[in-house]
Amino acid sequence: MPSAISVVTLLTDFGERDYFVASMKGVILNINSQARIVDLSHAVTPHSIEEAAFLLQSCYHYFPDGTVHVIVVDPGVGSSRRPLLVSTSRFFFVAPDNGVLTPIFDNELSVEVRQIENRQFRLDSEGATFDGRDLFAPAAAWLTRGQVPGTYGRLVRDYHRLSLPKPEVHEGVLKGRVAYIDHFGNVITDITASDLNTLQEVTKYAEISIEIGGMTVRGLKRHYGQGAKDSPAALLNSNGHVEIFLQEDRADRLLQVKVGDPVVIRPV
Amino acid sequence: MPSAISVVTLLTDFGERDYFVASMKGVILNINSQARIVDLSHAVTPHSIEEAAFLLQSCYHYFPDGTVHVIVVDPGVGSSRRPLLVSTSRFFFVAPDNGVLTPIFDNELSVEVRQIENRQFRLDSEGATFDGRDLFAPAAAWLTRGQVPGTYGRLVRDYHRLSLPKPEVHEGVLKGRVAYIDHFGNVITDITASDLNTLQEVTKYAEISIEIGGMTVRGLKRHYGQGAKDSPAALLNSNGHVEIFLQEDRADRLLQVKVGDPVVIRPV
Amino acid sequence: MPSAISVVTLLTDFGERDYFVASMKGVILNINSQARIVDLSHAVTPHSIEEAAFLLQSCYHYFPDGTVHVIVVDPGVGSSRRPLLVSTSRFFFVAPDNGVLTPIFDNELSVEVRQIENRQFRLDSEGATFDGRDLFAPAAAWLTRGQVPGTYGRLVRDYHRLSLPKPEVHEGVLKGRVAYIDHFGNVITDITASDLNTLQEVTKYAEISIEIGGMTVRGLKRHYGQGAKDSPAALLNSNGHVEIFLQEDRADRLLQVKVGDPVVIRPV
Repeated sequence: MPSAISVVTLLTDFGERDYFVASMKGVILNINSQARIVDLSHAVTPHSIEEAAFLLQSCYHYFPDGTVHVIVVDPGVGSSRRPLLVSTSRFFFVAPDNGVLTPIFDNELSVEVRQIENRQFRLDSEGATFDGRDLFAPAAAWLTRGQVPGTYGRLVRDYHRLSLPKPEVHEGVLKGRVAYIDHFGNVITDITASDLNTLQEVTKYAEISIEIGGMTVRGLKRHYGQGAKDSPAALLNSNGHVEIFLQEDRADRLLQVKVGDPVVIRPV
Repeated sequence: MPSAISVVTLLTDFGERDYFVASMKGVILNINSQARIVDLSHAVTPHSIEEAAFLLQSCYHYFPDGTVHVIVVDPGVGSSRRPLLVSTSRFFFVAPDNGVLTPIFDNELSVEVRQIENRQFRLDSEGATFDGRDLFAPAAAWLTRGQVPGTYGRLVRDYHRLSLPKPEVHEGVLKGRVAYIDHFGNVITDITASDLNTLQEVTKYAEISIEIGGMTVRGLKRHYGQGAKDSPAALLNSNGHVEIFLQEDRADRLLQVKVGDPVVIRPV
Repeated sequence: MPSAISVVTLLTDFGERDYFVASMKGVILNINSQARIVDLSHAVTPHSIEEAAFLLQSCYHYFPDGTVHVIVVDPGVGSSRRPLLVSTSRFFFVAPDNGVLTPIFDNELSVEVRQIENRQFRLDSEGATFDGRDLFAPAAAWLTRGQVPGTYGRLVRDYHRLSLPKPEVHEGVLKGRVAYIDHFGNVITDITASDLNTLQEVTKYAEISIEIGGMTVRGLKRHYGQGAKDSPAALLNSNGHVEIFLQEDRADRLLQVKVGDPVVIRPV
């Protein structure tokens, strides 16, 4: 087994206080003590599939080829929702079929989606409430030991996707929304550099105005140091999204916005 | 040294902000740079030995054979309380003698308990306030390098146990208490499936009523999706405990309960 | 490559909820899948260079020889502030040139400071807002693969230092300040055992009085168990600093102090 395929990332809404994450790690190491487990995040808002999808999209591609990404934000655990194994050219994804893998289905050129059916990859346990430990963790660990996806279960074509609104241009105005608010209070929109390029009139980023939370921001800065402490500024962030910020302070508090709120960009 | 014995877990009340956990990890890696360190939890309520014992019990057995579990919830650090090394058929435990290992003493068929006396396993340092770094971390790291328990110190027979009340049946009624409230607000009781089986009249789990926080819950669901958003439901959770939940919401807030509050189960 | 040099620690103000830390870990593992990544802390108060410097100082030296310490508390990201690679006899440090490495410059006998200029150690990416992922992480990962500091860039002599006040004795009185408040509410001062020794009159630690937050504490205890639950006590903590504590409670709340507040020690 090449060492490159022994990285396993965990993305959950379990928090870091309880025994949930540790149980999953124990199960993985019990199957492959050489696995390198990385916490992607465990602070997803409980049951927020959209937030987990956003976080996954923002960093999964930085990991080495062969990484197994495990996502357990799973309000339907124990019901008939299917557990999925998705293979792409570089990665594996193990997650419930609830739309959390939408960015992978959208971004990756080729995906193979299977239902995890083989009981070999499931722990015997009493309850039906912790598939993170009893199903997703062992399924991922066996992948790092070289199990091939074909042994997990049948191909699935009707997997679930989130139907998130996408930014769109209407009468020369680009409309999007707040996608995420980060630890620093920066307000990340769903509008990307390529969305900006669809505003035909704009040739330079200085020539746009951004309306958000009742305020208007002119142009894009290159880095946070060019902002101000008391009025919001914007830039294209490290993932190519339009982001509104205050210099060393929380823009979300000044703007009083939350995820889903509208953002409008016009040429000026 | 077999790779299987190089996993070390850390369970503390240190939080993740300060330099305490990192210091322990540095000490361990300085002794064995091949050790695989897993955070069990660092968010134990400060000084809560009972909470640490509950978390330990909930997941220690999922780890591979040879894992060294280090527990540092240690209000008596620097006093005459003894540091212990406990060996079972599968695991090692390194912890202060304050009762935090009670679930191990209760669950494991065979335990060997030693006092850590050998000064070889202690760092020289100025203060007497951080045995996590200066004693428990090096003691654990040397185990992963093959040191045998006999070299640590003398056998101990009068080690400390917590005297927690256990669920009991009185006049056909099962009385227990709230053992833990998790990240989702689920209320985990100390009542297990085997406790339920002592209620002779009950043949099916549908035929019980659970009184908690002034409310009554009828029967047990199989998974969270079968609950409701505004009235509490119960199930046997993934560790075999009776747990009260709301579908995608916090049951602890609705019930207004805390750890230690009474739970009563009756046949109906 | 010796295994001893593959430990990488991360100290940031990124929090653990977002994709920032995971992105850095992905980048590091993509360059060296054998790297052992340790979270020093990600809960530094946003933009607090002083707090990061305090945390770094408190634990960097416990790690094995060859460890690469990466510090990303970087309010000036994207501006002209320089990225640094600092080599000492035992460690490497990768950080922005904003003073966060002051304790290393102060404590280490020999430091070699270089500007990271070589574009080979930088990811191509769209924005200029995430050098943690695009520059510091790859620069650190290549060190673990044996890249030598000389290939990173030119030597720097005018690197930035914080100008923190140091404890000083004036007319027989030692004046310092609150340096940090930990997870338990313990109040850690910047006054060390060697500072105490400059108070010539003091021969035993019992013979001092400590004024802080309008209260006076007499003498030093040896461990927390010797304190009281309702009046503050002091000790020399595990890093050799004078620390004010309450037994199993938060001294910071009783004293109503914050970082920077004055502490005065007198012989009695």
